[in-house]
Amino acid sequence: MRVSIEEIRAAHARIEPYIHRTPVLTSETLDAAFGSRVFFKCENFQKSGAFKVRGAFNALLSLSPEDAERGIVTSSSGNQAAAVSLAARARGVSAYIAMPKIAVASKVAAVRRYGGNIVWVESKQRIPTAEEYDATAAAIEQDTGANPVHPYDDLRTIAGQATCALELLEEVPDLDYLLAPVGGGGLLSGTCSSAAGLAPATKVIGCEPEKADDAWRSLQEGTIVPQIDPQTIADGLRTSLGEVTFPIIAANVSEIVTVSEDAILRSMRLVWETMKIVIEPSAAVPVAALLEKKIPEADRVGVILSGGNVDLDSLPEWPS
Amino acid sequence: MRVSIEEIRAAHARIEPYIHRTPVLTSETLDAAFGSRVFFKCENFQKSGAFKVRGAFNALLSLSPEDAERGIVTSSSGNQAAAVSLAARARGVSAYIAMPKIAVASKVAAVRRYGGNIVWVESKQRIPTAEEYDATAAAIEQDTGANPVHPYDDLRTIAGQATCALELLEEVPDLDYLLAPVGGGGLLSGTCSSAAGLAPATKVIGCEPEKADDAWRSLQEGTIVPQIDPQTIADGLRTSLGEVTFPIIAANVSEIVTVSEDAILRSMRLVWETMKIVIEPSAAVPVAALLEKKIPEADRVGVILSGGNVDLDSLPEWPS
Repeated sequence: MRVSIEEIRAAHARIEPYIHRTPVLTSETLDAAFGSRVFFKCENFQKSGAFKVRGAFNALLSLSPEDAERGIVTSSSGNQAAAVSLAARARGVSAYIAMPKIAVASKVAAVRRYGGNIVWVESKQRIPTAEEYDATAAAIEQDTGANPVHPYDDLRTIAGQATCALELLEEVPDLDYLLAPVGGGGLLSGTCSSAAGLAPATKVIGCEPEKADDAWRSLQEGTIVPQIDPQTIADGLRTSLGEVTFPIIAANVSEIVTVSEDAILRSMRLVWETMKIVIEPSAAVPVAALLEKKIPEADRVGVILSGGNVDLDSLPEWPS
Repeated sequence: MRVSIEEIRAAHARIEPYIHRTPVLTSETLDAAFGSRVFFKCENFQKSGAFKVRGAFNALLSLSPEDAERGIVTSSSGNQAAAVSLAARARGVSAYIAMPKIAVASKVAAVRRYGGNIVWVESKQRIPTAEEYDATAAAIEQDTGANPVHPYDDLRTIAGQATCALELLEEVPDLDYLLAPVGGGGLLSGTCSSAAGLAPATKVIGCEPEKADDAWRSLQEGTIVPQIDPQTIADGLRTSLGEVTFPIIAANVSEIVTVSEDAILRSMRLVWETMKIVIEPSAAVPVAALLEKKIPEADRVGVILSGGNVDLDSLPEWPS
């Protein structure tokens, strides 16, 4: 169970004119710190500041003209919202976005800049559940007739996210490990699909915060164990695996490793300071797995730095 | 009066094996904000995090074997210190660095990591004067016999810094304006020397903080007007023009423009948020000149982003 390499290549051809081919960066300082040669795929330099545009463009560009006319609806804590708004503007369709009230300011601003229509998700907790997101999206769908584009639990979205690992593996073959963060599992499902098709010897490892370890628990229990009100700083990874992503990840990922909040912040700081690039907490999660020695030392490790959208007004206290 | 293009090319050949050829980045968002197409030469990605390694390597690699044996001495608020330490380690010579006690922690840590010997500059003010730096360096020279390598007022240093604009102009010809920050004037002297030799139609503009506007005042008065205890956040630009840099800048720079502290911080934030790269306040000064509309809108503007060494523990309050 996975997205085929042919579908991934088709998605890549479809979205290529609209996205950046992001650079793969290396750092001698970090290689020495981690004991492995690490290749960072920099999706923080992607359009809208995160990998999400890949899936959003693939989904939007796959719509029939009739469906496109009715607009689309999606739900997101932030990066998906901006990505879908950008893709919808490029395709010339209306986008309705169900967002949590705690979405970071820079992500809300990006959605507005790209012309997306925000609908706030009502929730009893600080962070809405998957059901609360879905209920809001369903209400918009009913009101407007817009097509649902799921932020991760959708094969068009996953095929788009897979193009990120496709580019990395084309540029850097023979990786021993390939690390990606896991929230709802769209990026990780795409990543392990690309690796299975292109580099079957590469072990794909999903990395998630200890405080949002639903993927780890779901794989342990063999069934989806949803995350309730996770308190991690990694705002992109608070969602739970879905019906589409769970079986793909269960079948194709070698392992899920979890990391502490402290390691996430230290890793974010380490990347800012040594590589001079801005990454968001969710992107620091696979780096934290290296920092905490959760990954065996290896010749060649790939890391997907998923995004760079940070709210500079509410930076946390840095651990020193 | 300037460094010839032949000397600059010789410096480039000398240092090329030891430095990074840094990328030139662009941003559609910033182009739209500034009304010009802007090409950013990213010396924040340079070894040791700033352009200073160019001059340091050129000076160190120019030493005779006899001189090299006696080690070198230099003075610096930070980036020069790390750069000289790195170059000295590569050449296998001892480096003594006169540093102010207010040097930012990350820069002090870098010097220690590269094996440089720090000697603190005694000063009655918070920020030492050029004379106080020079006295400390002279004392070290007397004690150790080390060769002085001036951080900016030295033709070997200037020829090295000039290679930054050389690379930019080779990659992006026909710039209307080329902007560089100015502190002691080493980078700006090198920049205008390269432009004069390679692209005489390109206007070179020096950018400095209003609160450290000695270059502006010196050019107005036709003589060096030193800066006393400047209070700018741009810690790399607190020094004053010297006997070597002043005449080169006076003869080859079109204009000096000054920018407010608020614009420096806003520009630093803008670059972090939109380009997802970490630049230090000194590097944000030319961006601030664009933000404050001190530069006429133009087809093609080059900006040298001089470095990325920021102390994340003492970030200022961001203006919003």
